[in-house]
Amino acid sequence: MVKVLILGQGYVGSIFAVGVERIKRGEIEHHGVPLADELSIKVSDIEIVGSYDVDKDKVGRNLEEVVRKYWKDGDFPALRNVIVRKGVHLRSLKNLPIDAEGLEDEMSLSKAIETLVKEFEELKPDVIVNVCTTEAFKPFKSKDEVIKAIENNDKERLTATQVYAYAAALYAERVGGAAFVNAIPTFIANDPAFVDIACEKRLVVFGDDGATGATPLTADVISHLAQRNRYVKGIVQFNIGGNMDFLALTDEEKNQSKEFTKSSIVKDILGYDAPHYIKPTGFLEPLGDKKFISMHVEYISFNGAVDELIVNGRINDSPALAGLLVDLVRLGKIAVEKGEYGAVYPVNAFYMKNPGPFDRKNIPRILAYEKMRAWAGLGARHS
Amino acid sequence: MVKVLILGQGYVGSIFAVGVERIKRGEIEHHGVPLADELSIKVSDIEIVGSYDVDKDKVGRNLEEVVRKYWKDGDFPALRNVIVRKGVHLRSLKNLPIDAEGLEDEMSLSKAIETLVKEFEELKPDVIVNVCTTEAFKPFKSKDEVIKAIENNDKERLTATQVYAYAAALYAERVGGAAFVNAIPTFIANDPAFVDIACEKRLVVFGDDGATGATPLTADVISHLAQRNRYVKGIVQFNIGGNMDFLALTDEEKNQSKEFTKSSIVKDILGYDAPHYIKPTGFLEPLGDKKFISMHVEYISFNGAVDELIVNGRINDSPALAGLLVDLVRLGKIAVEKGEYGAVYPVNAFYMKNPGPFDRKNIPRILAYEKMRAWAGLGARHS
Amino acid sequence: MVKVLILGQGYVGSIFAVGVERIKRGEIEHHGVPLADELSIKVSDIEIVGSYDVDKDKVGRNLEEVVRKYWKDGDFPALRNVIVRKGVHLRSLKNLPIDAEGLEDEMSLSKAIETLVKEFEELKPDVIVNVCTTEAFKPFKSKDEVIKAIENNDKERLTATQVYAYAAALYAERVGGAAFVNAIPTFIANDPAFVDIACEKRLVVFGDDGATGATPLTADVISHLAQRNRYVKGIVQFNIGGNMDFLALTDEEKNQSKEFTKSSIVKDILGYDAPHYIKPTGFLEPLGDKKFISMHVEYISFNGAVDELIVNGRINDSPALAGLLVDLVRLGKIAVEKGEYGAVYPVNAFYMKNPGPFDRKNIPRILAYEKMRAWAGLGARHS
Amino acid sequence: MVKVLILGQGYVGSIFAVGVERIKRGEIEHHGVPLADELSIKVSDIEIVGSYDVDKDKVGRNLEEVVRKYWKDGDFPALRNVIVRKGVHLRSLKNLPIDAEGLEDEMSLSKAIETLVKEFEELKPDVIVNVCTTEAFKPFKSKDEVIKAIENNDKERLTATQVYAYAAALYAERVGGAAFVNAIPTFIANDPAFVDIACEKRLVVFGDDGATGATPLTADVISHLAQRNRYVKGIVQFNIGGNMDFLALTDEEKNQSKEFTKSSIVKDILGYDAPHYIKPTGFLEPLGDKKFISMHVEYISFNGAVDELIVNGRINDSPALAGLLVDLVRLGKIAVEKGEYGAVYPVNAFYMKNPGPFDRKNIPRILAYEKMRAWAGLGARHS
Repeated sequence: MVKVLILGQGYVGSIFAVGVERIKRGEIEHHGVPLADELSIKVSDIEIVGSYDVDKDKVGRNLEEVVRKYWKDGDFPALRNVIVRKGVHLRSLKNLPIDAEGLEDEMSLSKAIETLVKEFEELKPDVIVNVCTTEAFKPFKSKDEVIKAIENNDKERLTATQVYAYAAALYAERVGGAAFVNAIPTFIANDPAFVDIACEKRLVVFGDDGATGATPLTADVISHLAQRNRYVKGIVQFNIGGNMDFLALTDEEKNQSKEFTKSSIVKDILGYDAPHYIKPTGFLEPLGDKKFISMHVEYISFNGAVDELIVNGRINDSPALAGLLVDLVRLGKIAVEKGEYGAVYPVNAFYMKNPGPFDRKNIPRILAYEKMRAWAGLGARHS
Repeated sequence: MVKVLILGQGYVGSIFAVGVERIKRGEIEHHGVPLADELSIKVSDIEIVGSYDVDKDKVGRNLEEVVRKYWKDGDFPALRNVIVRKGVHLRSLKNLPIDAEGLEDEMSLSKAIETLVKEFEELKPDVIVNVCTTEAFKPFKSKDEVIKAIENNDKERLTATQVYAYAAALYAERVGGAAFVNAIPTFIANDPAFVDIACEKRLVVFGDDGATGATPLTADVISHLAQRNRYVKGIVQFNIGGNMDFLALTDEEKNQSKEFTKSSIVKDILGYDAPHYIKPTGFLEPLGDKKFISMHVEYISFNGAVDELIVNGRINDSPALAGLLVDLVRLGKIAVEKGEYGAVYPVNAFYMKNPGPFDRKNIPRILAYEKMRAWAGLGARHS
Repeated sequence: MVKVLILGQGYVGSIFAVGVERIKRGEIEHHGVPLADELSIKVSDIEIVGSYDVDKDKVGRNLEEVVRKYWKDGDFPALRNVIVRKGVHLRSLKNLPIDAEGLEDEMSLSKAIETLVKEFEELKPDVIVNVCTTEAFKPFKSKDEVIKAIENNDKERLTATQVYAYAAALYAERVGGAAFVNAIPTFIANDPAFVDIACEKRLVVFGDDGATGATPLTADVISHLAQRNRYVKGIVQFNIGGNMDFLALTDEEKNQSKEFTKSSIVKDILGYDAPHYIKPTGFLEPLGDKKFISMHVEYISFNGAVDELIVNGRINDSPALAGLLVDLVRLGKIAVEKGEYGAVYPVNAFYMKNPGPFDRKNIPRILAYEKMRAWAGLGARHS
Repeated sequence: MVKVLILGQGYVGSIFAVGVERIKRGEIEHHGVPLADELSIKVSDIEIVGSYDVDKDKVGRNLEEVVRKYWKDGDFPALRNVIVRKGVHLRSLKNLPIDAEGLEDEMSLSKAIETLVKEFEELKPDVIVNVCTTEAFKPFKSKDEVIKAIENNDKERLTATQVYAYAAALYAERVGGAAFVNAIPTFIANDPAFVDIACEKRLVVFGDDGATGATPLTADVISHLAQRNRYVKGIVQFNIGGNMDFLALTDEEKNQSKEFTKSSIVKDILGYDAPHYIKPTGFLEPLGDKKFISMHVEYISFNGAVDELIVNGRINDSPALAGLLVDLVRLGKIAVEKGEYGAVYPVNAFYMKNPGPFDRKNIPRILAYEKMRAWAGLGARHS
């Protein structure tokens, strides 16, 4: 059994809840779940025990009602018992058409954290999954600064994710171990301050930013070129979508944090910093959750020949991440059982766009995949 | 020093010769040569000692004159000393606008093989590279059948590649070891008959069909999907080009052998035989050596979501293969030094579309790359 | 009111029937119907009065049952009164997995035609629409040859379409005017023999081969280049789909007739015959009715610059043609009212891939569109 | 004979100069010049009589030296006699790595304009072509405001293009007629203030923003859909390039003026404002002058079917515009001869992204093409 708590009951969190139920009922296959049923912990062992959001339209409703905003078909009685609770938002909903309320509107951040931790103790999750909206953020340098910002009730300095991660750590300390999966770009696994806190408090950290969509594919395409020693002249990668995450990224500040995350792969994989333009680019409502990606790579082959590749795709954004979460919550429980606290690189290297800890590089995902399997006690897929 | 003999002095063989010279002179980088200068044998150690063709317009000319048909810029005095000799063609030039003459037009196949072996002994190559035109072929079942077909002078049964491979084996036997790189689709490394002969006669065999262009990229793209457990509904891959190889493939019989080769990757990598349409499709002269590829992959992601990828490319066909040959001739010499005769899987798995021996599968190229490095005594690129 | 009879109750004919019903009910808009509700004859005026097929699984069933094979949602009581009758097939179902029975299996072709005409007289269609499977065919030179082939019961020489067209002409003669819409590649509007027959018997002919999918788009893209005097070096256009039409085209003979049709546009529009490779290429079942197209155009711009365009698409094949039919049946009635018998070029130039009569060229569709509007008595859309 | 003066001797102006010379010499065809040699004024009649720039590296040099920055091959003695003169820049080079000097650095704007007019009178151009860098601009409401801004020496309000256009009008008044081709986005043909001035002073105005690259192609693709009544759900169009124009557009203010220009086509052509994201998006140096474009269009076909088109291209930016200029300078002379002063819609509708005057819409380019031919006294290309 893995008890899961969701922070941010939006598209991803809802598709995760629906998909897990549908797999349990045998309605769909394990498609999109990398480790399918290979782990000793099965998908049927996943149980959602709690959910937080700040949308006034969601807080107080049961999970079945909320997931219906994103998935129309079928009833999900198992989700009726979970009531969405009020979390924190800070500046995370800036520029979004959402009427929000957060614990911080009623109390200090210290008090809000205390409230969260108490509620967590009551809900008893093994794994806490953060899928709230992309935020503009600044990493912390040290544990002390985090603590000081909380004490000062500094709502400009802290983001929702940082507050949640801190609460998760305090909770882990009290229950003797828990996992935090940070699926959004805010640095947690890459912020030494939070990794320190996690190690100290017995918190497993998976993060940052789930490796979905265009970026891991770009990584594999340029790995393909690197291994043939083709010299990449330039890389273009556009993304445009119509979901809330793309709308959030029209805020210039938020977009910048995303850009930072995504660009590191080029140098890590090629060994040189090929000129590149890689970033989520725009919002177009009719695309919905199925984003359009376009990638252009120009490279030099033998004898100076110049080749080009163009990759286009239509990719359902939320299911891609939700499928990874089905593994991550199970691997989170396994990591807690192993006692591997802090940022777990062998897991992060495959599942995360920006795998923490901070000093570790991106490697080709296909190699990361085999390393992750080994970490999870599974045999090599290819040998 | 690696002494190289080229069979089929067409586009690939000529770009190989030109590119090696230009790297020696420092005019260009090692781009497109996977192992660049990592091996103890350097590109500057490569020397072309012989060349064979059957085009009346090439036989008897020196190599500098012949490469000029494919590469206009610069003089290559080092190539002047190599005179293109008359080889065998059998049915390999069927449907091509080439005026051909082969040794078999003047003598029996046994005699032609004897002539080739004698000439090889005189030229003393370490490695013999086969880059003649794609042929329609039928694998042999046993060594005895090969020998019998030669004795019977059966010109319908044997292809040029099979005759060359047999001659190479006899040559290897006389000099105590040599390598044969089969860069075209005809089964040599995948034909147990030839692998037997090679083991017995001390011939290293790399083959079959150099892994260039769309196929290894398709392999990496579907590996990417497989590792996320996305279920591939169907794969389309078109190729069209304007060089002699695409013209050869307009012959239905020849195209079929290519199709066979290329399709095996789907099941090997996915584990199930996703419906696919993968084959070189057409000839369009103005595309020249820079083929156009188009790939479509539709797959099921988490919760039944259906995604699509479309990959297009313009890829210079001959330089892609020529760059691999720069490694293969050096690895061929290393294999001879190691005494690894027969089909060398760790090399073939990365460099070949249809890696022999026959009973070995395709694996993701990125994994094959690291295995090949280990075989060659090089450290892991990523760890 | 337009009374319509359908020949070939497959995907296109069924989507036509469903879509017309759904527009009548106000369930969907006129999307995909070029003239929408601009004509005096409205979509609500269309009534299907007869249907023919040769699939044993369809003959004798009512139309509501048959369309359900292609469209699952909703009931269509209006279609229940039409019973699918037995038509002719000749060699048109060669290579398809269909258990077929035709009138010609029980009687001579003359007798079959007589039977059809009698049934038509009973059903009283204004417009007969031919959407049977793509056939291998040979045009006739003269009316006499058509008649002779029928008299000789020459089942190898005649195709189903040719037999239907002749029956339609006899029917038109008896009722004093009718229209035949030939939406498949077989030459009717382009066969002088059939145009002669049509003029004599008072049959309007729209044809040949409905202009859907990639070809009209290619036409507009190369018109775009032609009008800027960009010189087209080469054109590639691939099509692959998973419906019965693509399966039919895997038969080499049938594919050739398609290729002939489609290629004429290049010279007609550019004024020179740019090298091109344009043809439906393959069948891949999982693509279903939504084909994948890929187009590559390379051209020379000012000062010798070389540019490239790549167009990819996923296009629902049957709805594209069915939407055109909604106009064509209405225009067919209008043509009969005008007394414009034979091949009507102003209609064909916009709606057909191979607009008859034979001696008329393709023109850019956007110009053809305005000419067609003028013919139909509608104002210019753009002025 | 057409005497041409160039404002902004960058990539476009230089390729124009080189291409015209090469056509004169018979080195290249008329590719990329829409009207080729159909006009009575031939390409060989074009003579460049003057050139202005503000780059310290260009001012004072002869034109042959300057074009060599953009085109390496060959000598152009005919260009040696033209010396690049100092123009005005105002804020047009903001954010670009160019060391600039303008007349306005030494004198008031009134004085600068007077200087320009005097020099123009000396050089005697028939047509003045503006190809300076994309600027951030604000249209004027009235002639008086333009005059007041000049009198007030308001360097923040006026752009280089606006100053040049005013100088061109004064010049036209003195010589009794001249033409101004505005190939950049700044409103001249779309600014009623400048159209008034032009009519009064006998200045022909072609503008605004040469219709090259992705936008006219998008226009033709959506015209294609509109004429089939397919309902466009959304349009995405990305552009990225590595030339100075794309670098200029990284300045947010400049990019906005471009976006405004480009978006108007959607509503003009479809008749409804389909959601769209159309704008030049980024700068990537290695792409150079050959931009990468990517377009995605999703639309509804008959019976609710949803189709998709994806268009990618590599397009040489400067030659595309330079080829149009070869027509525009000749048509400019013709317009002056006809006495058609102010914004000439029949020319602008085909050649300009934002065809002035302001109250005129975009129409499908293919129709605009035929109208333009008629205006120029040429027969219809297609009839």
